[in-house]
This record gives sequence, C-alpha cells and structure tokens, in this order.
Amino acid sequence: MRTRPLKVALLGCGVVGSEVARIMTTHADDLAARIGAPVELAGVAVRRPSKVRAGIDPALVTTDATALVKRGDIDVVVEVIGGIEPARALITTALEHGASVVSANKALLAQDGAALHAAAEEHGRDLYYEAAVAGAIPLIRPLRESLAGDKVNRVLGIVNGTTNFILDKMDSTGAGYQEALDEATALGYAEADPTADVEGFDAAAKAAILAGIAFHTRVRLDDVHREGMTEVTAADFRSAREMGCTIKLLAICERARGGASVTARVHPAMIPLSHPLASVRGAYNAVFVESDAAGQLMFYGPGAGGAPTASAVLGDLVAVCRNRLGGATGPGESAYAALPVSPMGDVVTRYHISLDVADKPGVLAQVATVFAEHGVSIDTVRQQGKNQGSGDAVAVEQGGGGRREGGEASLVVVTHRASDASLTGTVEALRKLDTVRGVASIMRVEGE
Amino acid sequence: MRTRPLKVALLGCGVVGSEVARIMTTHADDLAARIGAPVELAGVAVRRPSKVRAGIDPALVTTDATALVKRGDIDVVVEVIGGIEPARALITTALEHGASVVSANKALLAQDGAALHAAAEEHGRDLYYEAAVAGAIPLIRPLRESLAGDKVNRVLGIVNGTTNFILDKMDSTGAGYQEALDEATALGYAEADPTADVEGFDAAAKAAILAGIAFHTRVRLDDVHREGMTEVTAADFRSAREMGCTIKLLAICERARGGASVTARVHPAMIPLSHPLASVRGAYNAVFVESDAAGQLMFYGPGAGGAPTASAVLGDLVAVCRNRLGGATGPGESAYAALPVSPMGDVVTRYHISLDVADKPGVLAQVATVFAEHGVSIDTVRQQGKNQGSGDAVAVEQGGGGRREGGEASLVVVTHRASDASLTGTVEALRKLDTVRGVASIMRVEGE
Repeated sequence: MRTRPLKVALLGCGVVGSEVARIMTTHADDLAARIGAPVELAGVAVRRPSKVRAGIDPALVTTDATALVKRGDIDVVVEVIGGIEPARALITTALEHGASVVSANKALLAQDGAALHAAAEEHGRDLYYEAAVAGAIPLIRPLRESLAGDKVNRVLGIVNGTTNFILDKMDSTGAGYQEALDEATALGYAEADPTADVEGFDAAAKAAILAGIAFHTRVRLDDVHREGMTEVTAADFRSAREMGCTIKLLAICERARGGASVTARVHPAMIPLSHPLASVRGAYNAVFVESDAAGQLMFYGPGAGGAPTASAVLGDLVAVCRNRLGGATGPGESAYAALPVSPMGDVVTRYHISLDVADKPGVLAQVATVFAEHGVSIDTVRQQGKNQGSGDAVAVEQGGGGRREGGEASLVVVTHRASDASLTGTVEALRKLDTVRGVASIMRVEGE
Repeated sequence: MRTRPLKVALLGCGVVGSEVARIMTTHADDLAARIGAPVELAGVAVRRPSKVRAGIDPALVTTDATALVKRGDIDVVVEVIGGIEPARALITTALEHGASVVSANKALLAQDGAALHAAAEEHGRDLYYEAAVAGAIPLIRPLRESLAGDKVNRVLGIVNGTTNFILDKMDSTGAGYQEALDEATALGYAEADPTADVEGFDAAAKAAILAGIAFHTRVRLDDVHREGMTEVTAADFRSAREMGCTIKLLAICERARGGASVTARVHPAMIPLSHPLASVRGAYNAVFVESDAAGQLMFYGPGAGGAPTASAVLGDLVAVCRNRLGGATGPGESAYAALPVSPMGDVVTRYHISLDVADKPGVLAQVATVFAEHGVSIDTVRQQGKNQGSGDAVAVEQGGGGRREGGEASLVVVTHRASDASLTGTVEALRKLDTVRGVASIMRVEGE
C-alpha cells in the first residue's frame, strides 16, 4: 500500500460535509485499505469559520474556497455546498488545477452537467456524483455501469423524500395537503420554505440527471416537464383507492415516439397498489428501472440526510481515489445517443379525470363525445354524488343512466392510453361545455 | 473511438450465453459507443456444436474451449458454463494468457474465489461476476464500489427465485410444499432435480460471495450454515400470519460478536409483513443491505433467466473492456479485514417454536423452566388446539391456564433474541421432557 496520502479538500461542512469529515476520520483505516493509500483531509472551506466543528482540526478550516481548490496538491475535491454558484466555479477551477471532483449537487449537474463533464474530460479527471440523486441509494453507478450493456426504456422514481412523506401521510391518515405538510415541517422532513420539494424542482433536477444517464443523451433541467403536488387532495386519494391505486410524486424518464426521442417529467400520479413503488413509505426514495434485458429492477433506500448522503459521497471518493492511483479515470459523460427530448404533449399514458357536471340527462353523452372527438378512448366512467368518497359510487351505463334529479354530480373518467396533447385538447373542450361546471382534477395513471 | 475491436470469447452458449451473443450483435453500435471501441465475438466454445445457434457464425463455434482461451488475442473471456470444472481451469488459463474474465459462476466463485482473484491480480487482469448473484440485480458493484466508503453490517437477501416462487405460492394459496413445488416445476421455475434450490445450496453460494464482499473477508461456501425449505409447511405459514409475518428463504450475512467476526447462513425464516422483503413476489429476488451511514437499502429484480443474467454479464463486459482500453483494472478482491467466520451457534436472533405437548396441568411450567435454564427469554407463549390455524388460539397465562382435558395440545413459543447455541440446547432439553411429544417446527424470526 502507498503510504503517501491522497489529499482531499472538502467544500462545505454542513449536514453532509460534517458527516463526510467524520467518517473519513473514524473509518480512516478501512478507507486506506480499500483505496490502497491513506486519504487525508487537507482543507475544509466554509462560510462561517467560527462555527464549532467537532473533530475537525481548526487549522484546516478556511473561508477561501478558491485558494483551497487552486492549491495544486489536492487530489480530490468534495463539493457539498449545493446551488449553482460558487459551486460551479469551484468545481471548474478544481478540475483545471488537477483535482478530481465528487459532488452531491443535483441542481448544478442538472443545469450544467455537460460543461462540467467536458472540463473533467479535458483535464483527464473524474467527476462523480452518486449523492446527487436519491441520497444513499446506488443509482448513478448501476445505471452508468451495471446496465451499460443493456437498453434502459424507462426510469420511474420516487426521488424526493419530503413529498413522499407528505403523500404517504395523506394516504394513511386521510389528511389534507396542508395538514400533512405541517406535520412534515414539524418533524424536520420539510424545510421552512418547501417550494423546491413540493413544486417538484428538486425531483426535476434528479429526473434530468437520470434521463441523461439512462438514455445516453443530454437532458437539461429545462427539458423536464414539472408539476408540483400542492393540489393533490384527500378526495384524489379516495379516488385512487377506488382504482386500487395510491398517489406518488414521480420522476418519469422514458423513451417516446417508438424510441426516436426521450421524455422526462415530474408530476403526481396514481400507481397501482401492487406496484413496488406503491409501498415506499415515509421519506424513503425508490427508483424503478425497466430495461430490455434486465427487465424490472428497483433500488430503494434513504434519499436524503447527512449520513446517507455521506455514504454515497464516500463511495465515490473511494472510486475516484482508486482511479487516481491507477492513473485512470472512470466512465465520463455518455451522450452519444443524442436523442431529441420530446415535449410533454408526446407523452402517452392513462388519465383519471374528475368532472363536476350538471346532474341532468345527456351529460354523459356530451362528455363522451368530446373524448371521442379528440381520439381519447374511455376505459371506465362513473358518476358519484357530490359527497365524494362516501362509497356511493354508481356504475353508469352509456346512454344517460345514473341520472339524479337536481344539483350537480361528479363524473369520473378513466381513459385508455392517449397522448398528453390529446388529453389537453379534450380537457379544453370539456371546459367549454355548459354542462361541465368544472374540472376537479386530472391525474395521470402510471406503472401499469 | 478506437476502430480495432476488442475480442471476446464466449464459453458456453446455453440460455445465458446465447442471450449474451444475441445482445452483442443487436446492440453492437451501442456497446461500441459505451466502451470506446467495437467488441467482436471471436469464438464460442460449446459441448455440442451440432446444435443450431441462431445468429452465431458457425465458423466461430468450437468444442476446444482450452485452445480458445489460449489463443492469446482474446481480450475478455465470458464464462457462462457454470459448475467447478472445466470452468475453473478455463478461467485460470484465460487469465494466464492475458484475458480478463467475466463470469456468472456462483458455485465456482463461492468455492475458489480467492484463488481466482489471486490469478487475476497476478496477471493484471479483471475478474468480474455481477451475474453470479441475483441475476440482473446490480449488487456486487454497489456493494464493492458504491458502499466502499461505508460499513455494511448486514445483508439479508432473497437470492433464489425458485424457492421464493414456491414459498410465495404456499403463502398466497395455502398450498403445501409438494403442491407448490409441482406447480413451480410445471411452469419451469424449478428444475427436474430441484435439490440445489430447495436445499439452499444455490443460495449458500451467493451468501458466501455476498459476505466476502460486504465484510472484506474471505467467506467460503463451507462457512455458510445451510438449511433448505422442504420442511416448511402450510401450518408454518398459518403461524407466521398470526405473528404478522410471512416466510422466506433468506441468505443472511451479518457481523457477530460485536463486530469481531462474521456469520453467513441460509434458512427459511419468518419476516414481518411490513419488511420490504416480505412483498417480494414470485421468482423475483431482492437483497436488503444495512450499513452504518447509508442505513437500509434494497435492490430488487429478476434473479435468474437468460436475458436478465445476460444484462449483468454485459454490464461487466463493458466495464472490463473500458478498463482494458484505459490500461487499468477495476477493484479486485478486498479481504483485508480477514475477520473470522463464526459458527452458527454464535448467531443471535429470535425463534418461533411449535411444540406438541401433553394436554395436562404443569406442562407450560415445565417448558418455561427449560427455556429459563438455557438463558432463552420467552416473549410470548400460546396454546393452540391440534386443529392448527382454525383461529382458536388462546392466550395462556403463566401457571397452567389454558389446559384442556385429554389428548394433545400445541404450544407456540416466541423467544426474545438468543444465540443459536442456547436455542439448540433448549430444544434438546425440551425433547427429553415426557410431556413434550414432539418439536413440530423451529423457525427463526428475522428482519425486525
């Protein structure tokens, strides 16, 4: 074993960074044995040096991150600051000065992955980021390496723990969105400003990264269709149950137009209770992968948190250090397929639509005609009293059965597979019908 | 991209080998792009060359596998023959002649992994075998690389699809073992001679490989405690249900004696229905990994079959080819921890024991005394009529309650955590009691 240590610079020493530093110290012997050389924490860049950091030599702490990555004797820079700047400039500078980089920065990778990969390749260094997607769950490496001889067709993932906690709570207790969010906040699962999570920005960044790796195609954050989950209601969960489904916020990356393009999207969706993703509880993450040869795979685990994220960072650190000792680099960006990214309108799936309609004869015929005119085939249709979820759903015969005198009714339509563009056109036309008082909810049905 | 192809020799062209060859042909362009050079099938060694092999150039087929691996121009040998010989000799010869090796051979790796790794290292070549454990599921690579910076404490896996199919069938239909086995055989999930599967030999080989990688310690097949699942009964499933459990054949690798040693074992066990492994259905495999930093991870997918296994083989092939182009090798054997492997007696877990006892006063006191004398603490005890599973279980108070006049009764004892040695001593003593007519079943309770 080499005795001269590999030098690691740590950028950021918050929840994740402090765990990385702790494990580097407590597991130093194991890391050395696994790498083939000791690793030494050579510097820690932080914004507030005054904050006490247990177990970290104060002499290593600096506020000048740029000087740290420029030192020239640093073998690996671990970036756990997050956000676009100064992380982007620091990573680029680190690569230019001969360091390999391990990052947990999903936002940056989703936005500028191509440029960063190009910089890594130019300088013959590694850029690894297992921790950027789904925390501790090995996902980037399996997709990039284990499935390198296979053809991935779809990635379907619960990649945000906060929203899964909220949706699981709504599902298991019947709580509304706000009540479940309040509990998530109280328990520390949601941040004071939960926007990045509940509006799907966090999941969209991960979807961009996953789609890029899965399809060997550059997919940027802007390419990802994104809908948050703030409008999911307790009534939606009751509707889902009646379908034998639950509701999850999913990141979905799949091939479209017969494989000629790819799509990436984040939105709440119904999935059957029998689907492995349906039983992912609390703040756990899981990613379901479908490929030609392997079939259906699932990867499950904690998607966030200091220690789990540090586990992923350290796995990358070991790999990058080994590469460095061997004078090699690991797999870089693979974007050779360069498939176009299709817009959301090209996505084909099923839909569950709840309509508030006038309770009079002929409404169903009108509604069914609109679906037919837009080429959207109806699988089932049911009429419910306005007291939704009371269990009094009535099967409706085509031709106006199920009518009740006076007031409003709720019509639930589940479609066969149709394009998002066709569905959007259908909904626009439905809104123009006099007898349709409102479109209460539109939910995609996935994982069937 | 390099234009001169890397040459691959395929040993074996059965269910897996023919899929490997097929994908190498149909996905040639993708493989070339991902590797950075084309790969060429340079020879296929088979036993019966007369058998027609669709899509394989007959000029490549040979019965002289030794000559093929000795050719000297072969970059990678893919071994999908299985069994110990001639696979061992061929792999060793291949490494000596400068080829890297990708193998799907669990039996060989479990028995001779150390020697094969040593040969690979001596000759500066790779030995990869993702396909040897749990088919398509990326598991070796995540354990060996993604978790290289973490400390794995336990691996708990369903690693044999045949037995999971049988147990799942028994669980869902109430069928007995033979009936479920017959169905598995009829559907092609079980071989004509199912011994390797149902007696746990297959799972034990995988347990040895997993334990070795997880704990950086050499664990051989002989080190693995093995019990098959042929004695699991419909009554056991009814008992499991009453505990909120199901029964799975598990491969369990864990640290013992406070981390000073490791254990590896295969046996049927009850696990709670809430455990992620409990919902693994049919012939699917799943492996649950617990580590210090990452926490709880699970990897799920098809554990066998031509295409899934080929997916794993091809992932390794791409990695090994990349290494070869980069003049590097991937991670080899990591056995630096060299922990002792503890015998089964050191394993600590909970137990569910069904006793046939005389139905008279004082029996429970006698039985409880035996447990106490062996230091095994009882969690719950219940008395059941002989018509087990009829739902007439009666809670028994300490002191002889629940007695029924005449005949036999069944006593179900669930213990707290105790060593296997203590439990074995307890059972031996119980068998000597006049009032204990027989020990109907002993089942470990895991995953709590």
